[in-house]
Amino acid sequence: MPSVSSSSSFPSPFRLLSSRRPPPRPCSSAAIAGSNRRPNRIRASMSGGTSPVAEFPYLPPSHRELMLDLRSAVEARLGPHLLPSAVPPDVLSFHSPSGASRGALDIRSGGRDSPVDFILESWLHCELPTGALNITTLFAFLDASTDAPHLLMEFIQSSPSSLVLFTDLLPRKDLVLHPDYLDEFYQQTNLDKPRQELAKLPQVQPYCSSSLYIRSVLSPTAIAVCINCGEDGQSVMEDMMRGQLDTICKEIVRIWLHACASSSKQLGETERADLLRRDGLIKNKTIEIDLAANLPRMFSPEVANRVVGEIQKAFKI
Amino acid sequence: MPSVSSSSSFPSPFRLLSSRRPPPRPCSSAAIAGSNRRPNRIRASMSGGTSPVAEFPYLPPSHRELMLDLRSAVEARLGPHLLPSAVPPDVLSFHSPSGASRGALDIRSGGRDSPVDFILESWLHCELPTGALNITTLFAFLDASTDAPHLLMEFIQSSPSSLVLFTDLLPRKDLVLHPDYLDEFYQQTNLDKPRQELAKLPQVQPYCSSSLYIRSVLSPTAIAVCINCGEDGQSVMEDMMRGQLDTICKEIVRIWLHACASSSKQLGETERADLLRRDGLIKNKTIEIDLAANLPRMFSPEVANRVVGEIQKAFKI
Repeated sequence: MPSVSSSSSFPSPFRLLSSRRPPPRPCSSAAIAGSNRRPNRIRASMSGGTSPVAEFPYLPPSHRELMLDLRSAVEARLGPHLLPSAVPPDVLSFHSPSGASRGALDIRSGGRDSPVDFILESWLHCELPTGALNITTLFAFLDASTDAPHLLMEFIQSSPSSLVLFTDLLPRKDLVLHPDYLDEFYQQTNLDKPRQELAKLPQVQPYCSSSLYIRSVLSPTAIAVCINCGEDGQSVMEDMMRGQLDTICKEIVRIWLHACASSSKQLGETERADLLRRDGLIKNKTIEIDLAANLPRMFSPEVANRVVGEIQKAFKI
Repeated sequence: MPSVSSSSSFPSPFRLLSSRRPPPRPCSSAAIAGSNRRPNRIRASMSGGTSPVAEFPYLPPSHRELMLDLRSAVEARLGPHLLPSAVPPDVLSFHSPSGASRGALDIRSGGRDSPVDFILESWLHCELPTGALNITTLFAFLDASTDAPHLLMEFIQSSPSSLVLFTDLLPRKDLVLHPDYLDEFYQQTNLDKPRQELAKLPQVQPYCSSSLYIRSVLSPTAIAVCINCGEDGQSVMEDMMRGQLDTICKEIVRIWLHACASSSKQLGETERADLLRRDGLIKNKTIEIDLAANLPRMFSPEVANRVVGEIQKAFKI
């Protein structure tokens, strides 16, 4: 059996842990509907139909509400410019052979009029000896019609009172060589403010990825934190999710949608080639560091290959 | 009057604060000799004679001992390959017109057989309303006969019981585009271990530079921490300086001396040009962000110009 680990090397659409426990309880439609305050059209809209990724089962209510709101914000701005999902049903929703681990993944590519390369969303759930683990990811990659940063947002909730949050606008250029780029997307947008606000909270501690490469990929305004509200801190965590985390995450998505997701830039041939090479390395290393290492042991090699194959299609590698 | 600020944007040979207090007490030779356990030949050797920068007056004893040991380690390895200092006396030692702020700076260039571009050392002292501030810096820049990282180590001690420590091997390439470089200088050297050891200590908190550019310059194994031993924590700080900080700082200098300071690499023309452009930007931005902003208000524009002029000579900008 693979070892149970809660370390993360982020950023990745998946942060996978192995499980030694029986399959988690199935998530009934009624239970989902009961905790979902939003109409079906919003849950379904990102993939043009009812997508399992929009259901967010198993999540604590506040986590689920925030994810639905973030999807909704992205959809409102980008939805009309995205192509329908082409992800097959056995990747839209998948589970380990024993049913112990469950997940959903959806990917939508941008249309010709959009700088969006693709938007990847996923959730994962497994029951660990220490409790339920829920991971939700929103990853928006832009194409080479712009050099604007990509968006990453990931919640790794290992208990009702603790989680790890990664969120960043991933730079597509070496910021040391391009201070103007740093100024445009990070300084002028005041992106450090949400990070500073979060860092002030007593429950928040920095979280350092175990992968040096992943740390290198992050911008200087990246949020990589562990939030721990203590053993009986479930209601504190719920309040934070509906309060500070809600504000901060929505602000970051707003900045990305405003400054990046509709931008365009005429790049020179060399600049474009450099950008694509850098993007390619980030994609390759993400798969190598996280997916190839963790997905098979959680979902079996067969399921992992299927899921990774779909991601590779989106990544065009 | 300029505002008194203790914020730092590092890395820089200087972290300058203004002072409203009378000139600090002069540091007598006897006092220095009394707290210096090392023979004069070591104190003097880095610049081939008695250099004011080797005196480290005003420093708490443990801080002084560590700086002398670090100088000694660098000297033992690189001394024979360094040219004599060409820094004029009025920059080797300088002070504000009122005498309220005092400092020393020395620079030695590498000889033809050395990849060292220059080694810059400095100390600064001023009396602030909140107490004495002491800043010590060791900055070793390599030339384009290698792409190995530069060394930076800076202590900003604002009280006997608290300090900010910055130390890093500054990458000379975009680590996202060059995972092999990351592996060679940061992963294989186990550079993250000292950072992890330090982060475990209860007195240690992350320190985030106010400058996004400076944060971008740092490697993923950079140490940027605030160490606070509490109001009556002077002896705890002394113990840490002689214990964990001594071990960690010496290990980082050892890694740099071993893996970087004697390395050579045949760089292609484009690679070399890119390297020089990146190095140049780091130098320019360092001066712009720290020196040009802070030095004049502490030492007067005239003294600041003189000091910055010498640094610019070493930086070749």
